[in-house]
Amino acid sequence: MNQLQLMQDLSIKATTKIVLLVMDGVGGAPMAPGGPTELEAARTPNLDALAARSACGLSTAIVPGVTPGSGPGHLALFGYDPLQYEIGRGVLEALGIGFELQPTDVAARGNFCTVDANGLITDRRAGRISTEECTKRVELLRNIKLPGVQTFVEPVKDYRFALILRGEGLSGEIHDTDPQKTGVAPLPAVAYSPAAERTAQLANQWIAEAARILAPHPPANMLTLRGFAVDPNLPKFPTVYKMRSAAVAVYPMYKGVARLVGMDIVPVEGESPADEFNTVRQNWDKYDFFFIHIKKTDSSGEDGNFDAKVHVIETVDEALPTLLGLNPDVLIVTGDHSTPALLKSHSWHPLPILLSARTARGDKVTAFGETACLSGSLGHMRHVDIMPLAMAHALRLTKFGA
Amino acid sequence: MNQLQLMQDLSIKATTKIVLLVMDGVGGAPMAPGGPTELEAARTPNLDALAARSACGLSTAIVPGVTPGSGPGHLALFGYDPLQYEIGRGVLEALGIGFELQPTDVAARGNFCTVDANGLITDRRAGRISTEECTKRVELLRNIKLPGVQTFVEPVKDYRFALILRGEGLSGEIHDTDPQKTGVAPLPAVAYSPAAERTAQLANQWIAEAARILAPHPPANMLTLRGFAVDPNLPKFPTVYKMRSAAVAVYPMYKGVARLVGMDIVPVEGESPADEFNTVRQNWDKYDFFFIHIKKTDSSGEDGNFDAKVHVIETVDEALPTLLGLNPDVLIVTGDHSTPALLKSHSWHPLPILLSARTARGDKVTAFGETACLSGSLGHMRHVDIMPLAMAHALRLTKFGA
Repeated sequence: MNQLQLMQDLSIKATTKIVLLVMDGVGGAPMAPGGPTELEAARTPNLDALAARSACGLSTAIVPGVTPGSGPGHLALFGYDPLQYEIGRGVLEALGIGFELQPTDVAARGNFCTVDANGLITDRRAGRISTEECTKRVELLRNIKLPGVQTFVEPVKDYRFALILRGEGLSGEIHDTDPQKTGVAPLPAVAYSPAAERTAQLANQWIAEAARILAPHPPANMLTLRGFAVDPNLPKFPTVYKMRSAAVAVYPMYKGVARLVGMDIVPVEGESPADEFNTVRQNWDKYDFFFIHIKKTDSSGEDGNFDAKVHVIETVDEALPTLLGLNPDVLIVTGDHSTPALLKSHSWHPLPILLSARTARGDKVTAFGETACLSGSLGHMRHVDIMPLAMAHALRLTKFGA
Repeated sequence: MNQLQLMQDLSIKATTKIVLLVMDGVGGAPMAPGGPTELEAARTPNLDALAARSACGLSTAIVPGVTPGSGPGHLALFGYDPLQYEIGRGVLEALGIGFELQPTDVAARGNFCTVDANGLITDRRAGRISTEECTKRVELLRNIKLPGVQTFVEPVKDYRFALILRGEGLSGEIHDTDPQKTGVAPLPAVAYSPAAERTAQLANQWIAEAARILAPHPPANMLTLRGFAVDPNLPKFPTVYKMRSAAVAVYPMYKGVARLVGMDIVPVEGESPADEFNTVRQNWDKYDFFFIHIKKTDSSGEDGNFDAKVHVIETVDEALPTLLGLNPDVLIVTGDHSTPALLKSHSWHPLPILLSARTARGDKVTAFGETACLSGSLGHMRHVDIMPLAMAHALRLTKFGA
């Protein structure tokens, strides 16, 4: 039995409330040896006081050394082992732009490319055309009609777009048409299961039309499709944990992942941490579980802007009393992965985590930071174990065995 | 997906260099309660200074309580789960004596034994004859010819030898001929898969010849064969990690395990730690990854000689500046398993580990020892996670998922 099935077996209804506060990419690293991390440099009196009365520790998102994308990072936070529950790239791309994917939709990631007079690819990214140029071509492609299915074409960024097919009996079991090199023609869409034959035919028909439409518009005069996928039909979070579950997030990607596991998406007015915490307050009675997503810790880390990331953390800290005032039975603060300004990217480094609950065992940790949390009572843990711990401290799990 | 497949999927080429310094059996234990371990008793200013600027921790070789042999201990260090990737005993025996096994060779471990006039075993170890006596009989056995295959017989130690069959279509799927008790005759070689029928026939033919040759030479007047095995054809380290990989080792067993995973074996002039580090320096530009094996920490531990082991550790520490001077992007220092002089044998105790890299998070550890490393930022980890961490810090892994 896997862990999610175990949770579904053991979970019971209760009146307790759980808040999972995710500061995206909050984990950091010193810019120079011996220096502070972003969290350690930030002035966080509220988080520190909370840490002092919480169980603290460090949590590895996936497995040691592995850096997660946003999809797997959040699945792990929700208790879904990302090595077991995979989300196809096309679906992630659609989620990332906030497209409301239906359970039977097939989504693919598209790249505009450049082909020569013989149809051979000369640039797999069409000279990295601007998003504006991408959008113009996407609007042309929206005119393509396919028999029996609806098509959606959405610009993503630069030379990237998303293609969604909606209809009965579609399948995502189709190989990429991107040959991953130049000097050759784009591949046809080929099904790797009989169930996908019709979808592959439709895709090829769409590609043929698209090629005709794009021909007069170099450098983006052709396209490739990758990562055909359908909604992976994950076990639903509210069913597994028996909680009315809300996602409070500003960015499309995170709303998308929450929607994929069946959480309600609560609209937020404004986009500051204070706005998000107020949204939680306003919806407090309607839900048992709140996932709150703070984006800008990650974006400032990806920009390599140590000070900006410190500032975002301090903004969260300032707004924290709103959340604490609600007296959640279990409050967890952590991130989906680290994003050290030093690396300007997601990283594999474990994240500081604190768990506040009446039933939490204390420790000597009095600050919320990477080094301080090393000696915490949660020890070194894995993200997939966060929800089981939260459920336990919310007294929402029955005994295993008699 | 297993971890090694995950590494192969995520690994990318880069120009960074990784050094894995393995002091065999370096982990120890106090000779009396409250005393220092070998590492703690050793004067190691260079290792301590390195620990102070590194991420430190403790690593369990296999799983808690399990003491590894040299084969599994090293496989784990290389990122191969030894519970999943097993190496047959015959192959380990051949590796241990430095026999250059070919991919299709079948190797078995042989024991000389004593049989009575009725052919029943009276001593399974032939009175533990000397290696010299063993060698004399091995030379006689080398005269046995088999149709269509080459045979190699090599003395190992005391009553033990190795038999290797080389040819087309051989298989190691053959039961042991050692009945594991006295008063009975050695068993015939029996295939447990149809593919091994011919190999079993050849083995029986060889055994019959050997019995005839050995009859006049008691107490070693017969033999048994165990652990028939072929090269397990492990995924190759340079392919999985996309690194040009070198093993710098003095003893045959460790070169053998490294060869089994496809590393290049770099010849070492001399056999001191300083000689090995100089070899790394001379080959620095040719490889991305260096595995350095120091043997004598283990041998002195197995002798129960605490002071000798302390001295070996100090020799490594003195030579360390040569290695540090190369400025590897990632340097890891640990061992394959513990060998406390107290136990005079390998043990299950976790090993101190340090990881030095620009991206490593610091901690408060300022000495390289079992107790000091307890509070390190690597926490308590497993050997199989060492390579993923090394790869991450060398920026040689891409993100998992989008």
